[in-house]
Parts: sequence; structure tokens; C-alpha cells
Amino acid sequence: MTEERSNRQMNSQAEALLQLAEAAKSTFWGYLGCEIVHLEQEKVTISLDAQPHHLNLLNLIHGGVLASLLDNAMGLVVLQLCPDEKTVTAYMNIHYLKSSGVGILTCDAELIHRSKRTLTTQSRIYGDDGELLAWGSGSYRIVK
Amino acid sequence: MTEERSNRQMNSQAEALLQLAEAAKSTFWGYLGCEIVHLEQEKVTISLDAQPHHLNLLNLIHGGVLASLLDNAMGLVVLQLCPDEKTVTAYMNIHYLKSSGVGILTCDAELIHRSKRTLTTQSRIYGDDGELLAWGSGSYRIVK
Amino acid sequence: MTEERSNRQMNSQAEALLQLAEAAKSTFWGYLGCEIVHLEQEKVTISLDAQPHHLNLLNLIHGGVLASLLDNAMGLVVLQLCPDEKTVTAYMNIHYLKSSGVGILTCDAELIHRSKRTLTTQSRIYGDDGELLAWGSGSYRIVK
Amino acid sequence: MTEERSNRQMNSQAEALLQLAEAAKSTFWGYLGCEIVHLEQEKVTISLDAQPHHLNLLNLIHGGVLASLLDNAMGLVVLQLCPDEKTVTAYMNIHYLKSSGVGILTCDAELIHRSKRTLTTQSRIYGDDGELLAWGSGSYRIVK
Repeated sequence: MTEERSNRQMNSQAEALLQLAEAAKSTFWGYLGCEIVHLEQEKVTISLDAQPHHLNLLNLIHGGVLASLLDNAMGLVVLQLCPDEKTVTAYMNIHYLKSSGVGILTCDAELIHRSKRTLTTQSRIYGDDGELLAWGSGSYRIVK
Repeated sequence: MTEERSNRQMNSQAEALLQLAEAAKSTFWGYLGCEIVHLEQEKVTISLDAQPHHLNLLNLIHGGVLASLLDNAMGLVVLQLCPDEKTVTAYMNIHYLKSSGVGILTCDAELIHRSKRTLTTQSRIYGDDGELLAWGSGSYRIVK
Repeated sequence: MTEERSNRQMNSQAEALLQLAEAAKSTFWGYLGCEIVHLEQEKVTISLDAQPHHLNLLNLIHGGVLASLLDNAMGLVVLQLCPDEKTVTAYMNIHYLKSSGVGILTCDAELIHRSKRTLTTQSRIYGDDGELLAWGSGSYRIVK
Repeated sequence: MTEERSNRQMNSQAEALLQLAEAAKSTFWGYLGCEIVHLEQEKVTISLDAQPHHLNLLNLIHGGVLASLLDNAMGLVVLQLCPDEKTVTAYMNIHYLKSSGVGILTCDAELIHRSKRTLTTQSRIYGDDGELLAWGSGSYRIVK
């Protein structure tokens, strides 16, 4: 690949990403407050600056916020791998490992397995201090 | 029980409920937009009027919104059964059964099993037209 | 339906069941020791007489035995609903609620939801004394 | 550590392992046909030579066999980390990724997280040809 072509491709990827991020602002991704930190082909990192409205009555991050983060990160892995197909979450499970209050949450996700119609992924959420807070897996199905 | 005492007890329960609902408004429960529909001892019903900001890029209710609804409903069952103890979500899983757009979501939850330290619950979400959209289970642990 | 035709239909169902039970003896169903107790259209009951070889090092029923019972019961629901199609277990989860030693285990399973390609089911295992030991859910997919 | 002391320690570990393997022969571990391949502190590998009696009616490895393998491997990780405590499986979930017939199954398991009373683990099963067949997670609780 010539350098010029490579640059053009990178620009087009960066543009697609910017468009995606812009479109997501008005969805639940934006309402929650998620941000993309890093993207690789089969792996992504996103983050959320957890505020008081992300907590539950015990002043701990709400289980639904963590579930939403996991689904966002795993869904982004799937979106990258199947950019031209419609995919839906079919199944998700979450192990809540440690409670946490407000602060920056970082969430990694990666592909575990891919069959013709199903992508299986896993994702982990880390707290401000690097401790593992939650770990989950998901099944995403390509629908026609 | 005399009628007077029974009335007083009902008033005190109603008051506790109002206080709880008021306190929850500033938490993720309120940020999401959940409302209590009905409460029994081991069973609750809550609802959410799903708006555009609850959708994903495909204009379908976000998987994290459904997970949050399930956790809210199951957590409310647990809160009612253990009003004087601190409880946390330990585990949750969700089967996503049918996609849906904006509209009123109704979510039932009930107790499946209770041991000394763990409460196991299940919950279902129905769409505007009464169709089953999601079904999940949760483990809640009493912490000391 | 005339009585004669109804009897013939029942005989043909009973025959199909006997053939199925005979074929299953040489599979893991038979190796484990499962027996059919009761069959309805969307609900089944099976049982297992748990022996010392079904226990773990703590002399409690092995988690894998309970998982196998759940998969057998839920798979039988699916087999009844899709007698002419090839179906596979896509996902299973199990909440282990109470430990138990040897004795008769009874396992109910029923359909929760059916879409074009996926059947979602739940199943419960009860011990000798009627106590709930385990509860699980499964996703079964129709493959072509 | 002197070489002599190191050898003595290794001998005592090997002895404990042999005793464990001997005791497990009469449990469901032995009835299934599991064998230990490799043990590290937080990671184990076991195997099963899948025979016709491990299959289902479609001549594919039974979902319960795979669930049992996962529980055996994850339970062995827990047993190694908590040799002096009584632990039980609290929760398990399995993603079935690919069907397989008879042949050698290899199953890895490792620790994901450990809190005061709960160990969370994951495990993968590979077929004869190295393909990933199943992936699961488990929660194991220390009981008193």
C-alpha cells in the first residue's frame, strides 16, 4: 500500500468514527455519558465519568449503569466487526465483583468467538484505582 | 388487629414508600425515568416511558436500559424483603427476546429463592402491546 | 375427533415416546440415569435417582449432574416443540440454590419464549423433600 | 530455599495431588472420565476422552458433559486456592460455541477475581482440532 493510500484509508476510518460518535450522542450511549478511549479491530476501550445520577440509593454505581457500559463496549466490538449488518444483543450476563462510588470507569471489551450468525464477547470494567468492578459476557446476533 | 392500628400501619408503609420514591429521584432510577406501578410482598411492577434517549443507533430500546429496568425491579423486591440490611447485586443475566422502539415498558419482578445471605429473583419486561421483550434473573447478596 | 381416532393418535404418540426413550438409553441421558416422569406440550418433568457416583468430593450432588438434568429437561421441551428440526443448546445458566446428597431429584422445565430460530426455556430441580435445589435457563437454536 | 527442601515440598504436593485424584475416581469426576493434564496456582487444564455415552441423540457431545467439564475445571482452581475450606458452586453459565462429536476434549480454567467469600472463574473447552467449543464462567462460594 502506498503511503498516500494508507493515509486516505486512515482518514476515512477516522471520519466514519467521528460520524458514529456524533450520531451516538443523542442515543442512550450519550445520555449515559460514554466516551470512546481506544479502538482496535477486535478490542475496544470506552469510559464513563460516573456522577451522582449514576448511583443507587446506597451511593454505589448502579448495576444498570455497569450493565449498560458492558453492552456499549461489547456492542462496539460487534459494530466494528459487522459494519454492514444489523446486529442485536441476544444475551448478556454480568458478575458484579466490587462496589464503587463516583469516578472514572474504564471498560474493555473483546471478541471471544464468531460463528456465522453469532458473535460472543467479554468485557471488564475497572474503577478509578484500577480495581476490577464487573465482568460480563454477551451474545450478539446478526439479524436479516 | 384493630382497624385503627391497621390504618396506622398502612399509613406508615405508604409514607416509607413515598420517602423511598422521593430519595430515588436523584439516583439512576430517576435519571432513567422509572416509576413504581404496584408493590406486593415478594413481587413488584415498575414502568418506564421509553423516549428517544433510551434507544440505540438502530432506534431500538438499548440493551442497557432493559438491564437497568430488570435490576431496578429485582432490587426493589430485595429492598422490600430486607429493609434493614445492605444488599448488592452479585449477578445478573438477561435474555433479550424481542426488539422494540419507544413506548411504555412494564417490568414485573419476583422472588425465586432466599437463603441466609442470597436472594435469587427473576424479572420480565413487556412492551406496549403486551409482548415479552426481555427476561432475566439476578442474585442479590446481603453484605455486612 | 372420534374416540377411535383419538386412541390411535395417543398410541402413536406413546409409541414415538417409547422409541425416543429407548434411543436415549445409550446416550448421556441414559448414562446419567434420567427418566421421563411426565410430558405436556410445553412442559416436562424428568427425574434422576442420585447415587454415590453423582456426588462430588464433599458428598454433595455434583454441579455438572444438576446442569445435565436441566439441559435434558429443557432439551426435551424443545424436542417436543420442534420434532422435525435439528436444535442445539446455545446458552445455559444455573443458579445453585441449595446443596443435597443422594436421593430422588425431580426436574421440571417449560417454554418461556419462542422466536423464529430460538427457544428460551427455564427449569427447576427439587430434592427428595421438595426443596428447590437449582434453577436455570437455556437458549436453544434451530440449526439448518 | 535449599534444593532438598524444595524437593520435599514438591513431593508433598505431588502426593496430595495423587490422593485427590484417587479420591475423585469414585465421584462424578471419575464417572465422567476426567483427567488432570496440568496444574498451576490459579490455572488448571483437564481433559476428557469423549465416548459414545457422552453424546446426545444427534451424536453431538451433550451440553451437560461440557457443563460438567467446566465445573470440574473451575472447581479444581477453587480447590487449589482454598484447600482448607468448604466451597460450593453458586452460579455457572455456559456459551455453547460449536458442536462436536467424540474425541479428546481439553478444558482450561483460571481465576478472574477473588473476594472474601466468592471466587469468580472462567473456563474454555477445546476440541480435538483445537477449536473452541464452549466457554463459561462460575461463582464459587466459601461456606462455613
